Amino acid sequence: MKQSNTSDAGFSAIDHQMMSRAIALAYKGRFTTAPNPNVGCVLTLNGQIVAEGYHQKAGEPHAEVHALRMAGQHSLGATAYVTLEPCSHYGRTPPCAEGLIKAGVAKVICAMSDPNPQVAGRGFSMLREAGIEVQVGLLEADARALNPGFLKKMETGLPFVQLKMAASLDGQTALENGQSQWITGPCARRDVQAYRAQAGATLSTSKTVIEDNASLNVRWHELPSQVTDTITSEQLRQPIRAILDRQHHLTPDLALYQSDGAVLRIAQSDSDINISLDDQGQLCLEEALTTLASEQQINHVWVEAGATLAGALIQKQLVDELIVYLAPKLMGADGRGLIGALGLQYMQDTIDLVIKDVRMVGQDIRIVATPKSRHS
Amino acid sequence: MKQSNTSDAGFSAIDHQMMSRAIALAYKGRFTTAPNPNVGCVLTLNGQIVAEGYHQKAGEPHAEVHALRMAGQHSLGATAYVTLEPCSHYGRTPPCAEGLIKAGVAKVICAMSDPNPQVAGRGFSMLREAGIEVQVGLLEADARALNPGFLKKMETGLPFVQLKMAASLDGQTALENGQSQWITGPCARRDVQAYRAQAGATLSTSKTVIEDNASLNVRWHELPSQVTDTITSEQLRQPIRAILDRQHHLTPDLALYQSDGAVLRIAQSDSDINISLDDQGQLCLEEALTTLASEQQINHVWVEAGATLAGALIQKQLVDELIVYLAPKLMGADGRGLIGALGLQYMQDTIDLVIKDVRMVGQDIRIVATPKSRHS
Repeated sequence: MKQSNTSDAGFSAIDHQMMSRAIALAYKGRFTTAPNPNVGCVLTLNGQIVAEGYHQKAGEPHAEVHALRMAGQHSLGATAYVTLEPCSHYGRTPPCAEGLIKAGVAKVICAMSDPNPQVAGRGFSMLREAGIEVQVGLLEADARALNPGFLKKMETGLPFVQLKMAASLDGQTALENGQSQWITGPCARRDVQAYRAQAGATLSTSKTVIEDNASLNVRWHELPSQVTDTITSEQLRQPIRAILDRQHHLTPDLALYQSDGAVLRIAQSDSDINISLDDQGQLCLEEALTTLASEQQINHVWVEAGATLAGALIQKQLVDELIVYLAPKLMGADGRGLIGALGLQYMQDTIDLVIKDVRMVGQDIRIVATPKSRHS
Repeated sequence: MKQSNTSDAGFSAIDHQMMSRAIALAYKGRFTTAPNPNVGCVLTLNGQIVAEGYHQKAGEPHAEVHALRMAGQHSLGATAYVTLEPCSHYGRTPPCAEGLIKAGVAKVICAMSDPNPQVAGRGFSMLREAGIEVQVGLLEADARALNPGFLKKMETGLPFVQLKMAASLDGQTALENGQSQWITGPCARRDVQAYRAQAGATLSTSKTVIEDNASLNVRWHELPSQVTDTITSEQLRQPIRAILDRQHHLTPDLALYQSDGAVLRIAQSDSDINISLDDQGQLCLEEALTTLASEQQINHVWVEAGATLAGALIQKQLVDELIVYLAPKLMGADGRGLIGALGLQYMQDTIDLVIKDVRMVGQDIRIVATPKSRHS
């Protein structure tokens, strides 16, 4: 994803501290704001916080509105720290730039501009035209990390795609006879629930759904405490379950249909989402993803499927982040591999990754990695 | 391995501090003491360190002798903290228990008793008979960790076996066509050099040696700085390279024979170490290991080989520790697996591990794991 050229130069230590707080506030909305971005706002007077807020749910007030309401008359002459450019358009709520102007804010410091074409600098222009001092670029990388899905969709039309994989330490996902439950432990399974809860959609295949009779939804009582401490069970938002079902194998008796959350079947025709076949006769994955983004407002897709879909998404360079759980066990090379065959002839053709994070999740190892661009 | 029932109860904070220092000193000898154990010693008077020492090399003075020499007259009435029971027998050096008595030490605190049948409590008896107060069991687990090879050999006749494995994140060690160099990066390769430098022997197979034309020795200029800061190039001790060569495939032109360090061929006959075949017609691995321990004084074996030997050692429960390097790349399920086929039918039959450590080594992930006992 592209990075702005603005830098942190010219910002004070207090500025950094306040923007860090705004980012932490924005992060609280991560389970509930979809398809809107996570945004936080802090209002200060003379270097002291007088009010703060964050966007909690699409259709409800933006971060700035929460903070301005809390500030009351203290917004006069205040500095606003906002993690994303204030909006300039009438959506489900009036423009935040207008709200900041009316409230008499003297200065607005933003982490980044909003790539949404309805905003894209117009928020800053409105503020500047009203005589408000505007600075942009403070802790931009951290602010971008709040909204990988929102930004990727705005910038490319594709959602941010996280691919979940689980295997034994020797890379096997099942024994030769297909047995696989449970490779990872209860902490890893709770961790997966938290990832699902952050996604707009969980993408899988009818094969995986049928083999495991998987419901693929979020279960409140299986969420880790860092989630249940953040949202109530009423706030829990179910990701859409988008199932590739080219041959129409899904049947209404499956656990998928007996559990909370919407199900969208993806096939060539007669389905919830109809997409073309690619030149290998498979459902076109890029079209499936862009359609989820454009028609279903999905910014962030969490993929749980078998080696075939995993391998195809990776080879087509549609994966932004791999979440790999490795269980402390060995299953032997006669098991089933983590991704399908790649048919590589040379070591320089391997799919290279960058490891972003490695940690223990209960008894298992969790690795977060991003594919290296083939062209970089 | 068995654990003593003695506990840390009754030891003071100063005692803990002094024994921690003695353990840190002992650790300095890890590249040079084989086949002797790593031992450290601190002498204190009124809670202040007056002298310290550690065992540096087999045949040279023990830790206590170094400390007593440094202490001079200050040993009178001193407390000695030693990581292992002082020896009671005349070996290449006089017994250390006698040295401590002659030097007028008042009290000896040891982390653990020496399982060497030539010592095994006699050191403590000698000290007590001379009127010296003796306490045992302070930081025993840490002291045991200094000498996994020495202790395992003394307690079971088998050496401590570390199995090195390297694979892509999806558990592949080579492409389908056998291409494999280099899976891991330069930092991981330096790390392997450090492991080799700590082992008494590197165990491999003629197949691996010939395929890679591997020398399997320790190269000073490839060692990480934590090693070259600890020992000089003159102190570098080459592990014996013990090569399973049932069909006598090794030839003198191999890099193995053109590089520093001894090579021992293992076969059924006409070899440096002759051992029997097992009921599958393979060289008996347990016999190979006990023979290395008994005839070559090898406490600690570092295994670098292919999936077949790795799988066999694991299945025969001869591996104490796995060192797994996972490179940040995907190679596809058509590659070669980390261990051979295990033929498992049920998930409860997988080989279960306990993860001891996970960290980045350069761009690669290093996982240290121990097999769970099948009976625990």
